[in-house]
Amino acid sequence: MTVTVAVDANGADLGPGEVAAGAALAARSGTRVLLFGPAAEIHDPVEGVEVVDAPVSVAKAPEPARAVRAHPDASIVQAARAVAEDRAQALVSGGSTGSALAAGLFHVRRARGVHRPALALPLPIPGAPVLLLDVGANAEARPDHLVQFAFMGSAFARAVLGVDAPRVALLSNGEEPTKGTPDVIATHELLADAPGLRFVGNVEGTGVMGGAADVVVTDGFTGNVALKLMEGVSETLLRAVKEAAVSSARGKAGGVLLRPSLQGLRDALDPESSGGAYMLGLRRVGVVCHGRFGRKGFANAIDVAARGVREQAVEKTYEALDAAGALRGSPPSETAASVPSS
Amino acid sequence: MTVTVAVDANGADLGPGEVAAGAALAARSGTRVLLFGPAAEIHDPVEGVEVVDAPVSVAKAPEPARAVRAHPDASIVQAARAVAEDRAQALVSGGSTGSALAAGLFHVRRARGVHRPALALPLPIPGAPVLLLDVGANAEARPDHLVQFAFMGSAFARAVLGVDAPRVALLSNGEEPTKGTPDVIATHELLADAPGLRFVGNVEGTGVMGGAADVVVTDGFTGNVALKLMEGVSETLLRAVKEAAVSSARGKAGGVLLRPSLQGLRDALDPESSGGAYMLGLRRVGVVCHGRFGRKGFANAIDVAARGVREQAVEKTYEALDAAGALRGSPPSETAASVPSS
Repeated sequence: MTVTVAVDANGADLGPGEVAAGAALAARSGTRVLLFGPAAEIHDPVEGVEVVDAPVSVAKAPEPARAVRAHPDASIVQAARAVAEDRAQALVSGGSTGSALAAGLFHVRRARGVHRPALALPLPIPGAPVLLLDVGANAEARPDHLVQFAFMGSAFARAVLGVDAPRVALLSNGEEPTKGTPDVIATHELLADAPGLRFVGNVEGTGVMGGAADVVVTDGFTGNVALKLMEGVSETLLRAVKEAAVSSARGKAGGVLLRPSLQGLRDALDPESSGGAYMLGLRRVGVVCHGRFGRKGFANAIDVAARGVREQAVEKTYEALDAAGALRGSPPSETAASVPSS
Repeated sequence: MTVTVAVDANGADLGPGEVAAGAALAARSGTRVLLFGPAAEIHDPVEGVEVVDAPVSVAKAPEPARAVRAHPDASIVQAARAVAEDRAQALVSGGSTGSALAAGLFHVRRARGVHRPALALPLPIPGAPVLLLDVGANAEARPDHLVQFAFMGSAFARAVLGVDAPRVALLSNGEEPTKGTPDVIATHELLADAPGLRFVGNVEGTGVMGGAADVVVTDGFTGNVALKLMEGVSETLLRAVKEAAVSSARGKAGGVLLRPSLQGLRDALDPESSGGAYMLGLRRVGVVCHGRFGRKGFANAIDVAARGVREQAVEKTYEALDAAGALRGSPPSETAASVPSS
């Protein structure tokens, strides 16, 4: 089955040409790409990549939702419409995250029964990758939203990331079920009773890094704050180590000798390897790359999106939500255990 | 002025003897210590340290508030009572944090006009220490609570940590005033209008690490999650660097050469240097050490507590809250600008 991915070429710091190069890499492994961006800046289209001229960008718009509504010709809007109209089966964007989410929500639209989409990010933890969601699609989340996030993350980890029976945890300020805000405590109770979910309880920040779970659920405010702090700590420490390695002749010699051994760590921490953040809860798979990403990162994002389509991530999420009676507006039914074919 | 600090000797992983050794160090610099713990385990009392036999410990109690109520003879309760009865002017404990907070709240009690105490932790960020609060005293916080936290943190940073005009920021998922949960947005508005506070706006996690503020305010749930994540990331990365330095002969040689240069980083990251987390908003200064701390950490905690007394941290906090009309039950008054003497 040939999958077509709609890609927004605007939004990448390195320019549309770099995104096109990433599309070309992905096309080589058999994925078709519809590339929306300024045709004048995208040269040498390759086999499997079709460029659609869309020079208008809302990637830097301060109010993304408004910009997406006001600019139907913007590249991200055209890309989302291509997915909505089934000319492509998945969406990839270099950001902004806000405009990608708005375009996804307005055009691709929420999957049936999903309250809200969530943004899931595979944390680059050496040896124990963890899918954290929501990292910022919604500043607030009710307990029933968080329960859906748990199923969405679990289904995606299984279908696309190759985790067999993902352990799902709830981020809190203590491991005991009674720890957290009233909403977190209520969510814990719902998750503990949710059928078809491998819920392993609350997890603290140290547990996230320690590999206690494969999927960690939280609201978009806490998730976003947590993510940025982790990035900050990571950058600060690696810079400090680097500075130590140039602070003296002795340090310099040590740094040179240590460099090859540290390459593995640098690779493990490379956010480009996972393709970016996944928009879950839409009718189709979506991936948002960091603006910093180069061609390799965009190629990985397109690969992940195509895998999501092939592995029917959206359909499997729906089935899991339905089986658990966790769909919006549908309480658990007598027949919930029999999964409907999609 | 000789300051007396009441110290709970239970709760330290290394035992009451280690806390006593820390008390002895602090006593050498002129602070009197009332040390509550099992006298049988505390030998060789030194000049300036008075041991009060208090063998009962609630440091490991699963429900600290209940344990504090049920055990009036527990060491932390006796220490808090000594402060309440003015036999000592500040409280230091090796934890648990919950029992120290409960004993502080029940016996030392809240300062006049303060909604809730908060736990403030100086984050060991190389080159740019930041006071983060609340890191876990309250899972939830209303906007008027967060505003008080801002004043409490600012006054403490100025009086005790030696920061001249502390820059105060609000932790959020974006720098724009409109980012965050409704409570965070409301808090931003209140802080922007608060007189006598150097509010620098919202800060994201990357900004916390980047030195954008001296004091960062958040609710106890987010603060605690953030803190544990930072600890987790820090430990994971330093372990990975260490592993790289033993993974090969070349790496080993590099690690040995690099070690002296990294000592400065290790020192900067050492949580013992700041004495622990500060309980703010009580009628007296309180410091909670990490259970892992050794004598140096406890000595630093006692020094910080004594400095808080000498520098009148509690009184200055009250004055700042009063001047801003931010005291509980008292809206800004005409005379708010004239600071009452305490």
